[in-house]
Amino acid sequence: MRLAIDAMGNDRGPLPILQGVGNFLQKDRETAVTLVGNRQSLEEIMPQVGLQESDRLNIVHATQVMEMHEKVQNLREKRDSSIVRLVTEVKEGRADGMVALGNTAAAVGATCMGLRNLEGVRRPGIALPLPTKPGGVCVLMDMGANTVAKAEHLMSYGIMASIYSEQVLHVKNPRVGLLNVGEERGKGNDILRDAFALLEKSPVNFVGNVEGGDVFSGSCDVVVCDGFIGNVVLKVSEELGLTVATWMKEGFRSNWLSKIGALLSKGAFNFIRKRMSYDEYGGAPLLGVNGICVIGHGRSNATAVQNALRVARESVEGNINGKISSRLTAMKEEAAQILAAAGTENI
Amino acid sequence: MRLAIDAMGNDRGPLPILQGVGNFLQKDRETAVTLVGNRQSLEEIMPQVGLQESDRLNIVHATQVMEMHEKVQNLREKRDSSIVRLVTEVKEGRADGMVALGNTAAAVGATCMGLRNLEGVRRPGIALPLPTKPGGVCVLMDMGANTVAKAEHLMSYGIMASIYSEQVLHVKNPRVGLLNVGEERGKGNDILRDAFALLEKSPVNFVGNVEGGDVFSGSCDVVVCDGFIGNVVLKVSEELGLTVATWMKEGFRSNWLSKIGALLSKGAFNFIRKRMSYDEYGGAPLLGVNGICVIGHGRSNATAVQNALRVARESVEGNINGKISSRLTAMKEEAAQILAAAGTENI
Repeated sequence: MRLAIDAMGNDRGPLPILQGVGNFLQKDRETAVTLVGNRQSLEEIMPQVGLQESDRLNIVHATQVMEMHEKVQNLREKRDSSIVRLVTEVKEGRADGMVALGNTAAAVGATCMGLRNLEGVRRPGIALPLPTKPGGVCVLMDMGANTVAKAEHLMSYGIMASIYSEQVLHVKNPRVGLLNVGEERGKGNDILRDAFALLEKSPVNFVGNVEGGDVFSGSCDVVVCDGFIGNVVLKVSEELGLTVATWMKEGFRSNWLSKIGALLSKGAFNFIRKRMSYDEYGGAPLLGVNGICVIGHGRSNATAVQNALRVARESVEGNINGKISSRLTAMKEEAAQILAAAGTENI
Repeated sequence: MRLAIDAMGNDRGPLPILQGVGNFLQKDRETAVTLVGNRQSLEEIMPQVGLQESDRLNIVHATQVMEMHEKVQNLREKRDSSIVRLVTEVKEGRADGMVALGNTAAAVGATCMGLRNLEGVRRPGIALPLPTKPGGVCVLMDMGANTVAKAEHLMSYGIMASIYSEQVLHVKNPRVGLLNVGEERGKGNDILRDAFALLEKSPVNFVGNVEGGDVFSGSCDVVVCDGFIGNVVLKVSEELGLTVATWMKEGFRSNWLSKIGALLSKGAFNFIRKRMSYDEYGGAPLLGVNGICVIGHGRSNATAVQNALRVARESVEGNINGKISSRLTAMKEEAAQILAAAGTENI
């Protein structure tokens, strides 16, 4: 198996990417990696982390980079950017899966355009793994690829995220909830009511409507929502995490007793940091495209990169795209019938 | 001035309510309070907190209670519930403002039905004050009264929450943001694009589109969104707060060194608890109804009750309803023109 990774698209520069790749290659002896990026820059840094080109590590040269805040539209002028070249590696079969880092909108745009949808899928979406209170993982889908989701898209997110949870996060029979403003059936708008009817009949362990708190409480393994709400939940959670951390620092600086307390509590803080950290989950897969694509955080460290590669490998090994395609294709006719019965024509 | 409070609708029972009322009466010598609830139960408990009926404290008897998880529809069978009687006190002019506690949906339903909308207002909404990273307060509106908001409703939330922020939270020239998935103009759906155009022309300090993180970052004083998203943000934030607290406890229990650290850090924890606590903000006002209504948390302690009464008093004193009504009425024609120009007929 060969995985390709965008070696340029990281706020922290290529060094942590190369470290992560090195650690991955050392641990996983069966897999080869393609670095996509500026050959000269990469060749300069590689010796620093003990890497050199080999049959398990090659470079695909790309002269351009999509910067963090460039718009998707700029992809047109950046045909030789690392993200476009990365997608081409998968599209043309030279890589079995890819890890994108950095500009998420550009990664989604380039991948959707380059790889097109999987058979049976109407809209790809991003599955975001989040840490839960009891120490597990809840997958929120969609995180922002599709901000105006229809009922059938939401159903497909439930199915796709459930397969990912099972195959990559190793959750047995994942509980799938539909994000709403109350648990009773019939809550929300028409799209949510239709999505409820579809998820109920789909091949997932549907637990019904859930509320915002269920994303973190551990009561669900998958929470389905449109990309608008997914984006808001992600941004709120990230900032609230930072906010609590800031308050903690202020609190511990407030007097000498608690300063000593903080010193003695280093182990406890490391525990919390590890629980809150996204590094362990290795990024968020873009599901529904015709290829394996994992999107890492724009500020990934070596651990996050290594785990993103692991997620890509497990996604290939678990054949998640084959499973997604067959389950969604099988559901197609029934979904159309359910929506027609509900009076929803525009599926 | 006389304020009425629902003395029955609290998960923790009437005792913390009576304590909060007692503290409020002691501090605020100009204001009288009406307790609405079961006379016998209240008379039994009042001596425990040193309270007795007087010209500054009277009881309005109500035989029923809307329980926490009863649906709004049940209000029909509970004409003699404390929440219905509470609204009647304001409606018939015996109280200048009210504090509801407990079942939020029932409080919103009873208040909207009983008091009707303020002149110029199409849809009331709940303004939720949330603590921010730098130690300020950001008002999120709507928190869940109106889950399918139109553009004009969103504009009115910006105006109403801005007035509340100014008059009650004492923020000068509050910065108002529209919750979206990106800061660029034109992001989101038609409703959000129309709301942007309206807010831009409205008499608030509109800072444009903001993202989920801005609710806590301190970059905004008011964040406008529909009640669906507001509800999700509230529930996600509450549960994430509990989640981090749980992780902290686990972390500090993990070894004897950090157990000692935790003991020495009590002051720091109290600081964080105070920052995270909703008690200080005294509940969320329902804005846009023809009367002052503050909705407290269903698990209010005495401090939260006292602050909710203070918020009601300041809302009356600041004449926030007069200001809301005049600014929205003044905006009515211009809003209709902007929406017509945008091709939006259904305002």
